[in-house]
Amino acid sequence: MTYCVAIKVNQGLVFASDSRTNAGVDYVSVYSKMHSLGVPGERTFVLLAAGNLATTQMVVNLIQRDMEQGERRGLAHAEYLYDAAHYVGELSVDVQERHAEALKQSGNSPEATFILGGQIKGRPPDIYRIYAEGNCVTASPETPYLQIGETKYGKPILDRIVSPSLSLADAGRCALVSLDSTMRSNISIGPPLELAFYRTDSFEVAPRLSLKPASPYYASVQKSWNEGLKRAFKRLPKFDWE
Amino acid sequence: MTYCVAIKVNQGLVFASDSRTNAGVDYVSVYSKMHSLGVPGERTFVLLAAGNLATTQMVVNLIQRDMEQGERRGLAHAEYLYDAAHYVGELSVDVQERHAEALKQSGNSPEATFILGGQIKGRPPDIYRIYAEGNCVTASPETPYLQIGETKYGKPILDRIVSPSLSLADAGRCALVSLDSTMRSNISIGPPLELAFYRTDSFEVAPRLSLKPASPYYASVQKSWNEGLKRAFKRLPKFDWE
Repeated sequence: MTYCVAIKVNQGLVFASDSRTNAGVDYVSVYSKMHSLGVPGERTFVLLAAGNLATTQMVVNLIQRDMEQGERRGLAHAEYLYDAAHYVGELSVDVQERHAEALKQSGNSPEATFILGGQIKGRPPDIYRIYAEGNCVTASPETPYLQIGETKYGKPILDRIVSPSLSLADAGRCALVSLDSTMRSNISIGPPLELAFYRTDSFEVAPRLSLKPASPYYASVQKSWNEGLKRAFKRLPKFDWE
Repeated sequence: MTYCVAIKVNQGLVFASDSRTNAGVDYVSVYSKMHSLGVPGERTFVLLAAGNLATTQMVVNLIQRDMEQGERRGLAHAEYLYDAAHYVGELSVDVQERHAEALKQSGNSPEATFILGGQIKGRPPDIYRIYAEGNCVTASPETPYLQIGETKYGKPILDRIVSPSLSLADAGRCALVSLDSTMRSNISIGPPLELAFYRTDSFEVAPRLSLKPASPYYASVQKSWNEGLKRAFKRLPKFDWE
């Protein structure tokens, strides 16, 4: 399983993902689900991937190939981020179809979902969630975040905290707490947690962090959040019968 | 959809449930999913129900009938809470089977899940989750809570706070916050929120609260929790690049 989240705030974009993949409980491995792509100074993309690992790897591979070979299609030439998201959706559907029948027979699914975010020069930054069917939706000021994978455990904190006026750093902390909560409640989500920041018009993904539980910053966030929650809980008003 | 949770602490048991049922988005109604049953001074049960409303209503109806008619089976005669849970599981499977074929043809499911908790004189109090298949599991000191229905949004706070040493009131507050978080993230979960307390060896369910968003206590908990979370969030350590 996987959990990825992207947040769009006025200052820019934040991307976060876990790194655990598993085929059953006895084949657990670590793969980054966050891919940075782009043309320096002109266009920057971050792609988050969830679902069948063979599908997502092939989609990423095809995207990179199209960029390297200067194909007229693909991320290097998309006029709008929306076109880029549709292109990823088309690739994903194509890749899924190639193996769908064989996978179905072994009781598996080729499905994959993606979040594509970034900026193309002259346009505003944006984020898109790309469904397994290839279609996509973007965020809105009322719903400034998108999730894929195991989304439910980490949603309440996003619903309470995230708004477009949040600073880029605060959005990053919120994504980190959302991932941490998910990881505590579901063992199929695991470290390292990757966190990437994109500041509007910077055309570079920086900083990009890979946080293990032993990383001093991550450990301090975990401790502080845990203590803060316990403090908030202790301060809740008493029942009248207490 | 439904969300119910039961927590077992050293002082006793806490039960909590939402009250929204829906068949599609245009047929939403309010039903209590919490049922108290028992024999005064001798045995006390609380049953929480999720799933197909026709199934859960019929199961509750049959349980009550067996109690009233003094049947040798049923909650009035179970020697152990475990037997009572198995009895509920058997009833549930029977009821589901009656309508399974017809429901399948209309694309619906007769499935229902339950949490049964309480105490039979001379035995310790306990809680059981009864699956749609009729089998059941109990809680443990390491996992002192059970959930049914839409369980994921409300799980992280339980994982962080609940332990057997929690006071009954604190366990109730934790269940309330867990329900509130779920309700914010999923519109199929709705008020009033019901909250029931069972103190070990009391053989009565008291107090039992029905909390609407306008209820002063619930409103004060919501406000306090929201502020406490935001305070905890603001105190998180800064990134080194800030």
